[in-house]
Amino acid sequence: MALYIAFEGGEGSGKSTQVRLLSKRLIELDGVSPVVTHEPGATPLGQQLRALLLGVDQAPLGPRAETLMMAADRAQHMKEVVRPALERGQHVISDRTAYSSLAYQGGGRSLGVDKVRAVNDWALDGLWPDLVVLLDCSPEAVAGRLERALDRLEAEADEFHDRIHSTFRELAAAEPERWVVIDGSAPIADVAAAVWTAVEQRLVAS
Amino acid sequence: MALYIAFEGGEGSGKSTQVRLLSKRLIELDGVSPVVTHEPGATPLGQQLRALLLGVDQAPLGPRAETLMMAADRAQHMKEVVRPALERGQHVISDRTAYSSLAYQGGGRSLGVDKVRAVNDWALDGLWPDLVVLLDCSPEAVAGRLERALDRLEAEADEFHDRIHSTFRELAAAEPERWVVIDGSAPIADVAAAVWTAVEQRLVAS
Repeated sequence: MALYIAFEGGEGSGKSTQVRLLSKRLIELDGVSPVVTHEPGATPLGQQLRALLLGVDQAPLGPRAETLMMAADRAQHMKEVVRPALERGQHVISDRTAYSSLAYQGGGRSLGVDKVRAVNDWALDGLWPDLVVLLDCSPEAVAGRLERALDRLEAEADEFHDRIHSTFRELAAAEPERWVVIDGSAPIADVAAAVWTAVEQRLVAS
Repeated sequence: MALYIAFEGGEGSGKSTQVRLLSKRLIELDGVSPVVTHEPGATPLGQQLRALLLGVDQAPLGPRAETLMMAADRAQHMKEVVRPALERGQHVISDRTAYSSLAYQGGGRSLGVDKVRAVNDWALDGLWPDLVVLLDCSPEAVAGRLERALDRLEAEADEFHDRIHSTFRELAAAEPERWVVIDGSAPIADVAAAVWTAVEQRLVAS
């Protein structure tokens, strides 16, 4: 059975590094590349939506419009990339999923996690990840890591990032069979080992 | 009390003509222009979404992504245009609303009217029109009226347009206090008179 594995966490928590290391490890295991993807912006439509969403000139963008555009990106991503890969029997590793919307728009923008979940559940047609790895870092710990210019979402106030951080933790605590929480500030090799332990358990069970 | 009035109906049913005539009549009545608007594409964000949605090169666009982009357009339209106008006490006349999504994506694309209504109710934050004028024309009757090139939605098969037509009728039948159905193939002046009768009733009641 193909696994749908997601990485979640704030900016600078090490998601892209761990996605790369897990992909390498899965290739070593069975010689087949997993599909490595990300949200938002993994499809041609999604790239255009992402440009609209992250552009700094879109300041008056409303939170509901933002959420719905994110959900449109995810709907197209499921249709074009994730569902076809799983149906072919390939594992999928995604850097962010709809859970980011639950944290950013539901928690960060205070739209309500349950409402944003309902919209996204419809967008995904019910296809949520089998395993979500939360790379947990306090917003203060990652503040020093980012060296490039901040985009519109990253430039938001501290309180916004605190709400995102606590929403991710609440989502993980509510579904411990789906989520694993790993300290993202630990050394890269230690994080990778903890990720692999969680993935191996799911591979055996599936 | 400011009224939020919408026109719905298939392509070529005469909506833009009747929007213009109703606007003129309301100005004659109280000297104040109503806000005349349309969906999709009435905001800067909406124009960019509309370009993505109606482009003929977006053939693989999934129906859920399409619905969510339409809903994003509507969320932004409520926030930027409709709600501020009503709060200022101005009437709003809109050429199409979220009901078009219920008919096109819910009915036409068979996604289910209730599911599409739930997504849009969240997008609009519950702000639906006070009066919806359905300009009812059979798809066959309007086929001859359109002289320009068809866009992606217009070029769909007859069955798609039949489902839209019957969904609009069902929506109107389910909420007779909100909807008025007028034969769009009648002479323009007769349609305008019927529209005015419906609007006057709401003006008296509000």
